[in-house]
Amino acid sequence: MKKQCLSAVAAISLILPAAAQAEHHTTAVADRADHALTSDQAAWDFLEGITTEVGPRQPGTPAEARGRAWAMDWLNARGFAKVADEPFQMRTWVRGEEEARVTAPFAQPMHITALGNTASTGADGIEAEVVYFPSYADLEAAPVGSLSGKIAFISHDMRPTQDGSGYSFAGPARWTGPSLAASKGAIATIIRSIGTENHRTPHTGGTTFADGVEPTPAGALSNPDADNLERMFARADGQPITMHLTLTPRWLGDTTSGNVLGEITGSNPSLPPVLVACHLDSWDLGTGAIDDAAGCAIVASAALNVAEAGQPLRTIRVLMAGAEETGLWGSEAYSATHIDEPIGVGMESDFGADRIWRFESNFRETNPDLHARIAQSVARFGVANSTNVASGGADINISRDQGGAIIDLQQDGTRYFELHHTPDDTLDKVDPVQLRQNVAVWTQVVGILANEAESIQTGE
Amino acid sequence: MKKQCLSAVAAISLILPAAAQAEHHTTAVADRADHALTSDQAAWDFLEGITTEVGPRQPGTPAEARGRAWAMDWLNARGFAKVADEPFQMRTWVRGEEEARVTAPFAQPMHITALGNTASTGADGIEAEVVYFPSYADLEAAPVGSLSGKIAFISHDMRPTQDGSGYSFAGPARWTGPSLAASKGAIATIIRSIGTENHRTPHTGGTTFADGVEPTPAGALSNPDADNLERMFARADGQPITMHLTLTPRWLGDTTSGNVLGEITGSNPSLPPVLVACHLDSWDLGTGAIDDAAGCAIVASAALNVAEAGQPLRTIRVLMAGAEETGLWGSEAYSATHIDEPIGVGMESDFGADRIWRFESNFRETNPDLHARIAQSVARFGVANSTNVASGGADINISRDQGGAIIDLQQDGTRYFELHHTPDDTLDKVDPVQLRQNVAVWTQVVGILANEAESIQTGE
Repeated sequence: MKKQCLSAVAAISLILPAAAQAEHHTTAVADRADHALTSDQAAWDFLEGITTEVGPRQPGTPAEARGRAWAMDWLNARGFAKVADEPFQMRTWVRGEEEARVTAPFAQPMHITALGNTASTGADGIEAEVVYFPSYADLEAAPVGSLSGKIAFISHDMRPTQDGSGYSFAGPARWTGPSLAASKGAIATIIRSIGTENHRTPHTGGTTFADGVEPTPAGALSNPDADNLERMFARADGQPITMHLTLTPRWLGDTTSGNVLGEITGSNPSLPPVLVACHLDSWDLGTGAIDDAAGCAIVASAALNVAEAGQPLRTIRVLMAGAEETGLWGSEAYSATHIDEPIGVGMESDFGADRIWRFESNFRETNPDLHARIAQSVARFGVANSTNVASGGADINISRDQGGAIIDLQQDGTRYFELHHTPDDTLDKVDPVQLRQNVAVWTQVVGILANEAESIQTGE
Repeated sequence: MKKQCLSAVAAISLILPAAAQAEHHTTAVADRADHALTSDQAAWDFLEGITTEVGPRQPGTPAEARGRAWAMDWLNARGFAKVADEPFQMRTWVRGEEEARVTAPFAQPMHITALGNTASTGADGIEAEVVYFPSYADLEAAPVGSLSGKIAFISHDMRPTQDGSGYSFAGPARWTGPSLAASKGAIATIIRSIGTENHRTPHTGGTTFADGVEPTPAGALSNPDADNLERMFARADGQPITMHLTLTPRWLGDTTSGNVLGEITGSNPSLPPVLVACHLDSWDLGTGAIDDAAGCAIVASAALNVAEAGQPLRTIRVLMAGAEETGLWGSEAYSATHIDEPIGVGMESDFGADRIWRFESNFRETNPDLHARIAQSVARFGVANSTNVASGGADINISRDQGGAIIDLQQDGTRYFELHHTPDDTLDKVDPVQLRQNVAVWTQVVGILANEAESIQTGE
């Protein structure tokens, strides 16, 4: 019934003058957005399909390539135009054996996973005294050379936050902690997982060694293991705590990854497209449901909804970036290739599938009318307006590089870091009700943007 | 201050006639029980100590032996009498490599752990078609021979229950499922974890092969992996699903385990002791916090509290049984050795550390006065009376073998099977507030029983 009405709307749009068409679009988009709240739409199909039929999609590996092929089949089956895989080269790191055990004074095994871009201990592993740093600042305060021959343990504790700011607070322990420890002589680093739950599922993720610092082995302990190691320090009466560590990741050299593209073709090719982005790759431990199959499911499903409301003025380009997890390779490659093709506005979904709670743009001052119209349109979904300036995420380098318009639809990140980069990033963690709210909000916002005849950034 | 008052009570007990002493004991025990609600007592120290300083304590292994040594040191330091390690021999199985991956049509890795007493696939593993049984009954209905050369997948789903009855509902899939599948030709069995959470932490546990059935490899998938495999069957359009499975457990032959004992000595050696039991071993995946360091912490802490209220009439014997997880070896060995020494009443704590919600005995009809007195005494801790007949648990075979009095202090099991037999059985899962309630209730009940001059079973 609903579908028949919409087809009528679409038919009408072919014969009406521009102003009337715009009004019809507005109504039809709002209707599709409302409808998304009570239907799984295409989003659940994408999410269930890729996590079940492909699973983990580590950058630069055959599993990621299977993910690209799967996504292109899906986009073609759903009627997207210009479905393509744009290849690029990347340097690929893969996990090996992973084992950690305290050897004295309280011998017991621990759960560990290697961090991306780290070195191998060799198959026989290493054994050394562990030096405990409760926080990143404590490691910073350690004298150069003081860690020679030792394993640094950075136990910087993360707390859940709605806006994800806890990641900035605790993240440096992973992002640069191993490099800092190595610069002070450490032969390896173990960190408390950058995560907020208490399961024996350590959080992986990339780390970077500074120029001139030789990469060392480094891994994350699960939070219960980090707790236990802290208790050992409290109970050891000053006895040294030693650990045996085996981590054997390796570099595969340069391999091929790619960006998957698809479009809803707009009626006015002179208007720059709306870019809706996500990333298709995932870490290897989970099946990449919340990071980031959910994002691809949301943006693609919203694009389809907008199309169903009638052909939009602007093309909607879906970018499912490759190899985000190990260094934004796909986002950078896309920007490098397409830098001369103006984007009207860039948006990405890459923070799970919990509800959108806040809307931000970077054109609130330059195009206040459009900003206000969007804010007003999503209020009925519980989304608040914000004075924050949107800066976009990992997958829309091109919008930042072009200095273009950006919108952030902020998702609730309270439980995101319970799952992020762990084996527990699986389909069952996605709340279908909140996923629908995401699709509804995206449908509404993309629907407005794709039918905007004036410049999004300035309204002129 | 409180402690000084209690010492005064203890001193008074030495000089008063029996009736007055009994009244003093009653008051002092109730006071100790109340006090336990607001103090961690010895229980937390035991629990934190053994999980941190020993960790996993698999039956028959050196880790379990370290656990016994640790527990004896602790019991001696706390002033228990007759602290001993009574050795026994057992047949010991240990885990090896563990890997499962779907190879077609949807290739991806899965999280698996071997079940106790199962056979090895050999280091190269096996690959075969998987046959899906949604429930144990579906496997029962499969014709003999129908599984020849295949891997059986039993996906019997468990639900949380307060009284733990969900374990009886779903447990057979693990306890006898692999044997049943093997009897129908299966070369291996995979089961959905007998557990109620959705983490990538599969639940291990023992299985038994019937006489005449050759043991096969068998393992448990985590619940998210079992979900995923079910979805694969739904999406495969009848294509066969194949899996590669590597599980290399092995038997170590006969090794030594032992039961750790300690006593609070009663003043009347003619009265049979109160036996308070738990088990000291654990599965190897976690640190055995809820299963069952918590139980040992609770019973030992309660015994100490009762002693602090004044020397009891009856001896309180603490039995920290060995090798419960792989076949109740310790409980059986204790009964065989001590069968001719009457036990006044047997109790055990082996269901985590969440709150006690129900009191049951097997003497409600034969000694209604005592049953009612105990029920009344624990009502203030939120513990309900019950007409169920207590049957005791794994660690008090001797009370069943003697046909003796038994009390069950039923703990809330709603979240127990989120953790049981998984890597997630770690200290952080214990709620200190609920642990205190356990110690309070145990202090109250053991305090009454240990000061009971008449037969517990009959009141005569």
